[in-house]
Amino acid sequence: MRVSYYHGDRTFKTGAAPMPTPQAGEALLRVRRVGICGTDLHIYQGHLDHRVPRGGVIGHETFAEVAEAPAGSGLARGDRVVVEPLRFCGECRACRMGAQYICYQLKVLGVDVPGGMQEYWAVPAARLIKVPDSLTDDHAALMEPLAIATHDVKRAQVRSGDAVVVFGGGPIGCLIALVARHRGARVLVSEVNPFRVDLLKGLGLEVFRSDPAGPAQDVVRAVNDWTGGDGADVAFEVTGNAAAVRVMTDVVRVWGAISVVAIHAEPMLVNLYPMFARELTMHGSRLYAREDWEEAIRLAATGAVPVGPLVSRRIPLEDLQQGMEEALGGGPVMKVLVDLTG
Amino acid sequence: MRVSYYHGDRTFKTGAAPMPTPQAGEALLRVRRVGICGTDLHIYQGHLDHRVPRGGVIGHETFAEVAEAPAGSGLARGDRVVVEPLRFCGECRACRMGAQYICYQLKVLGVDVPGGMQEYWAVPAARLIKVPDSLTDDHAALMEPLAIATHDVKRAQVRSGDAVVVFGGGPIGCLIALVARHRGARVLVSEVNPFRVDLLKGLGLEVFRSDPAGPAQDVVRAVNDWTGGDGADVAFEVTGNAAAVRVMTDVVRVWGAISVVAIHAEPMLVNLYPMFARELTMHGSRLYAREDWEEAIRLAATGAVPVGPLVSRRIPLEDLQQGMEEALGGGPVMKVLVDLTG
Repeated sequence: MRVSYYHGDRTFKTGAAPMPTPQAGEALLRVRRVGICGTDLHIYQGHLDHRVPRGGVIGHETFAEVAEAPAGSGLARGDRVVVEPLRFCGECRACRMGAQYICYQLKVLGVDVPGGMQEYWAVPAARLIKVPDSLTDDHAALMEPLAIATHDVKRAQVRSGDAVVVFGGGPIGCLIALVARHRGARVLVSEVNPFRVDLLKGLGLEVFRSDPAGPAQDVVRAVNDWTGGDGADVAFEVTGNAAAVRVMTDVVRVWGAISVVAIHAEPMLVNLYPMFARELTMHGSRLYAREDWEEAIRLAATGAVPVGPLVSRRIPLEDLQQGMEEALGGGPVMKVLVDLTG
Repeated sequence: MRVSYYHGDRTFKTGAAPMPTPQAGEALLRVRRVGICGTDLHIYQGHLDHRVPRGGVIGHETFAEVAEAPAGSGLARGDRVVVEPLRFCGECRACRMGAQYICYQLKVLGVDVPGGMQEYWAVPAARLIKVPDSLTDDHAALMEPLAIATHDVKRAQVRSGDAVVVFGGGPIGCLIALVARHRGARVLVSEVNPFRVDLLKGLGLEVFRSDPAGPAQDVVRAVNDWTGGDGADVAFEVTGNAAAVRVMTDVVRVWGAISVVAIHAEPMLVNLYPMFARELTMHGSRLYAREDWEEAIRLAATGAVPVGPLVSRRIPLEDLQQGMEEALGGGPVMKVLVDLTG
């Protein structure tokens, strides 16, 4: 079977490997689609070399069919499943609090341990979630980022009628915007990439086209106008960029909330004065509980959140490296899926 | 009557003024004590010259006796009162949400408009809160910072058994620590000033004596040891210093909370990675609702929070400028009160 291996230095190479042998409690999966995520781009650029070994197998947005299921798992050959790509200890403070997905010893499948960029993959059956036949393979591959989005919107307590600002209209930002809109919020997405701006508008979202060379305060003025001077109820930081971090505390109303979704590896300059003066709340939002996956599947299966338009293209496993370069280029791309059925 | 006027350029001068004439709804106060607060030190150094005019009268931690009360106010001559030093519009989004103390048009008495550093002062009766005779004049002058502390601890949802870290053991940090301890938390205060370290220890608080020249990570290690590797449940940032801001997100457990109490006029470097990875919550905490004053008075009057040891000295109004210099010097001082009865 074919596997894509990470070689460091912005290199992936496809090689052959023996079929995996499932251990006790594991199912054998025939992988069909794996999405490329922002974290994968970090890995590709070497930012996570302390977690991803050379020879590692990435991929944490996986849709597959069950090839072999362990007895008593409730799964059967042919079941269509997505993979909750987490391994947690079950004993630390986080696990005891019910926050297994941020376990102090968390291992992410496709980051810290091998992931889905292989034709067959043995995964604990407890980490598999069935998806209905009404979801296409492409749509099912988007359940992982959509579960991120449902988690983020839940944690930010977005309510009907809220004015929500999303900094960054990539796949996660776009899905957050769609989930928030489905909850009855009005949503403004700030985005630079013209392809993404058009895609977001095509989904009926309001967009502030931000100009990286322009004054950062432009978006603050835009949000003030948009909210009659009150400020937004909730802002999501999904860019990872210093400019958005610099203004995120300026766009939110008294007692409003800021959700930090993006990964910031380095300390960032944050304007804490509005945190104090307006008694804002800022919180981080990282992964998902099982219910977040269930909501994601429900929202996509019912069409409440249209995920299809996010898929920009499908590439074969052999083109993973090239797909990374394209995704990094800031060009006309939203979500790239690796298709392992070819 | 005597009034202390702000002249800019680190100067206060005491002058004479005619007795104020109360307007409708106002009581005339005979001011007895006014505390000097960190905000006053900012004013003294010129940081708030955009809010405090030359010729302005500062002082927002005021204890007084009622000299004249308006009819129907429920107040009488001789009543001992503290002043809630706020003027709010009642119409903006914040006021309509019940957050009058962070009104979009908020004026703070003693900052934006004249305050308590005058022998007689006309104040709306609605902003006066009676204190029981069991509170001495000195103790009553500490009700404003104690209301800050009860508000901060309430907003941070400190619970019995929580491990609470307080960065900064000045008057506010010390009072936060005492209120949190009264709620059943175990508390560690990080402080530099040796006089304050001893005072905090004398109050039975655990203290980490931080070394400004040492590695910032020392306090992170200390908190990890103190919590068996979990991290603190809640951290309060009460220093205003970059070093504490830099590590405040490193000392808190999964799903833990950080309260930003200090004023940070400039953007600060914040390590957002733990915000994301541990799904932390950070919130600002500024002033107080009426119930926070009521709790403060109850805690002090019952002796649950011992405020007396915080009073380092009493100075006459004429010595205000000198008192500011002493408070800025980092010397053996906690709280300085201006005594206007002399």
